[in-house]
Amino acid sequence: MSFREDGAAALEWAARYLERVGELPVLAQVAPGDIRARLPAAPPEHAEPFADILRDLDEVLLPGVTHWQHPRFFAYFATTASEPGILAELLVATLNNVGFLWRTSPALTELELLTMDWLAQLLGLPEGWHGHIEDTASTSTLATCIVAKHVTGRNVVVCSEHAHSSVDKAARMLRMELRKAPVDGDFRMRVDHVDVSDAAIVVATVGTTSTASIDPVPEAAEAARDAGAWLHVDAAYAGAAWVCPELRESIAGVERADSLVVNAHKWLLTPMDCSCLWTSRSDDFRDAFSLVPEYLRTPEEVTSLSEFGPALGRRFRALKLWAVLRCFGRDGLQAAIREHVRLAALFESWVRVEPGWEVVAPRHFSLVCFRREGSDAENEALLERVNATGEIFLSHTKLGGRYVLRLAIGNARTTEVDVRRAWDVLRAAR
Amino acid sequence: MSFREDGAAALEWAARYLERVGELPVLAQVAPGDIRARLPAAPPEHAEPFADILRDLDEVLLPGVTHWQHPRFFAYFATTASEPGILAELLVATLNNVGFLWRTSPALTELELLTMDWLAQLLGLPEGWHGHIEDTASTSTLATCIVAKHVTGRNVVVCSEHAHSSVDKAARMLRMELRKAPVDGDFRMRVDHVDVSDAAIVVATVGTTSTASIDPVPEAAEAARDAGAWLHVDAAYAGAAWVCPELRESIAGVERADSLVVNAHKWLLTPMDCSCLWTSRSDDFRDAFSLVPEYLRTPEEVTSLSEFGPALGRRFRALKLWAVLRCFGRDGLQAAIREHVRLAALFESWVRVEPGWEVVAPRHFSLVCFRREGSDAENEALLERVNATGEIFLSHTKLGGRYVLRLAIGNARTTEVDVRRAWDVLRAAR
Repeated sequence: MSFREDGAAALEWAARYLERVGELPVLAQVAPGDIRARLPAAPPEHAEPFADILRDLDEVLLPGVTHWQHPRFFAYFATTASEPGILAELLVATLNNVGFLWRTSPALTELELLTMDWLAQLLGLPEGWHGHIEDTASTSTLATCIVAKHVTGRNVVVCSEHAHSSVDKAARMLRMELRKAPVDGDFRMRVDHVDVSDAAIVVATVGTTSTASIDPVPEAAEAARDAGAWLHVDAAYAGAAWVCPELRESIAGVERADSLVVNAHKWLLTPMDCSCLWTSRSDDFRDAFSLVPEYLRTPEEVTSLSEFGPALGRRFRALKLWAVLRCFGRDGLQAAIREHVRLAALFESWVRVEPGWEVVAPRHFSLVCFRREGSDAENEALLERVNATGEIFLSHTKLGGRYVLRLAIGNARTTEVDVRRAWDVLRAAR
Repeated sequence: MSFREDGAAALEWAARYLERVGELPVLAQVAPGDIRARLPAAPPEHAEPFADILRDLDEVLLPGVTHWQHPRFFAYFATTASEPGILAELLVATLNNVGFLWRTSPALTELELLTMDWLAQLLGLPEGWHGHIEDTASTSTLATCIVAKHVTGRNVVVCSEHAHSSVDKAARMLRMELRKAPVDGDFRMRVDHVDVSDAAIVVATVGTTSTASIDPVPEAAEAARDAGAWLHVDAAYAGAAWVCPELRESIAGVERADSLVVNAHKWLLTPMDCSCLWTSRSDDFRDAFSLVPEYLRTPEEVTSLSEFGPALGRRFRALKLWAVLRCFGRDGLQAAIREHVRLAALFESWVRVEPGWEVVAPRHFSLVCFRREGSDAENEALLERVNATGEIFLSHTKLGGRYVLRLAIGNARTTEVDVRRAWDVLRAAR
């Protein structure tokens, strides 16, 4: 193949995709098995041209793609792979560095530590924390539970009933006991309603998945300290907001955390995967994970980032975070976050004044939880109807047993026109 | 930024890098801290042009990069990010699909299952196995240990003393007891010398890290079956060789495995990360990992790949594996593997006839273990001297207490001239 020629075609495909993604149905309109059925069951015997990949990407795969880059993707937590992040991934793959030791790529190791420091400064975190990148918040949480178990010798995970399922999953994988605190009327963890005394770890969430509610981190920190437990703050989505000083109310208490996760691939314009994990207790992380067999010993006296988490092999993910932080700058990141919060507030205001609709949880950051008057079944059917239009894609949750719609704004291409369209589609689908 | 303009510059940078990588010092010639010291300690306030990223990549970062794409990278297991794989990563980042549910990208889910079936066919695996992609073999092994523990209710991991450190790490993370079998004179697990009776899992390795030795999988399978233990085969490196029928001797017994890992990012021309994990017991995987909270429930009756491993978020890694399998085809992959094996055999033959040098382990696949006459310290110093030349990069291991050099061939750009150069540099460094 000609790398330049095929590369130019791939790049043009990418450029065109980003231009037209808003015209595609946001949620893939296919049935299970449709895509696979259109592809050969056996692998090719001989080389095929790269152009065929691009052709089949359009003709076969694209109808089965749910468009996360679509400006009207409002499901889960909406994300953005920004242009600098995308191009950085091209560079990451080209270099193909595997940073399991410092010497296998000093630049990877040192840039990762530096960009994590940069991001810590942007978010207003305490100085001196050790930051490294994991693939997903699931892994960050799992890693943290491993460390907490290692450090405390205990086996109980405490979180709220609104904590992310990755906490449940980590506890299950590690065979730890999971103890869930109830939440108050605003879906915040009631730390005083759960026994923390024998906890290995307390997980407080800033920006829960269902409603973006904010657990009282100072109280959780207090309880964890009294119990000798680890305090982990899961701000996978909402931590990004701290780049804006006016959105830092929710950072209170985070300075007392033992660890913190913020996913740059959620609301910080970075392509999957880039889960940013900081700890104020890096020695404990290293104690839990460091394991250097003979074939990985090197003369340098330097720590390697694989000593801070489960995986040995590591991609050069720092390069994309670095590219994003530089190509947006502090004010660029702030502008993106502020616009999303503004749009969510706007949508919320529309729902509030519309007869037959209600906002069902306090709006935090860029997430609005709402529903139409009527039964759960009606709301569920409504959601499926609007998603089937291909115009917008929303997801749901349950609050107090009721089926609730969620509109999450997080794509950099989303404009007020898109949010207005979402509202129009929702009302038209009544 | 202009995506097309900046993209063209990034692509040109990548093309030039791949052309000139062989002229760069393969092991980064910097001291710890050098790279970081040359970068600003604080993040930028305002947006910077993407061109600055490319400039600093050249001027600041590149001296700190160890060039895994270099044709004379012979350390650890050498790898290749092939051109189709690199360009596919650009597409992966552009689409930015997060495949935690089938509906969040049907194409991602179905293409992953399909390409894993394709690869299973190419490698000669049994029909009907369930395959999915994890980031690294560390995660694949961790996931498998979790399943084995879940299924058997036991807590013992059995492997050989030559198993990869990721097995140790998984056992440590899960607080499982690790029991290591001794090896025979050819560094193969002596299954009959270890108590398997209460094992949750037996890990057999095809292609150990130190010497690429091949554990007797049929015996391990027998022992695991008798004990009611899970059999996991770690063929992270060497499994790729099975694409060649004449290299399939080592696949014997693998058909009886409960799970198998082969890293496509090692010897199958795919950029990091792409660890291929198959299981003949997919229901057990799903039982161990499936956890669907309300906000992830969807109407489709279809499994999601996040139900088969630790992470929830998943990149569209299948796209790069698909691109690689198609753009090389079976015969293209075979040609790459065969050439590497031929070159390793050639190097081995040179060492064998050279006075003062010896081959210290049977040569398997594309890895040669050798040393110079003399003390461990002398061999270690020799290795550091040759690596400091920037001409070649090798790593080491210890065998029977002796310091041993490893030459691993796995980069698609490596030619006979490069291997000859390695031998010249090694002999000149005496």
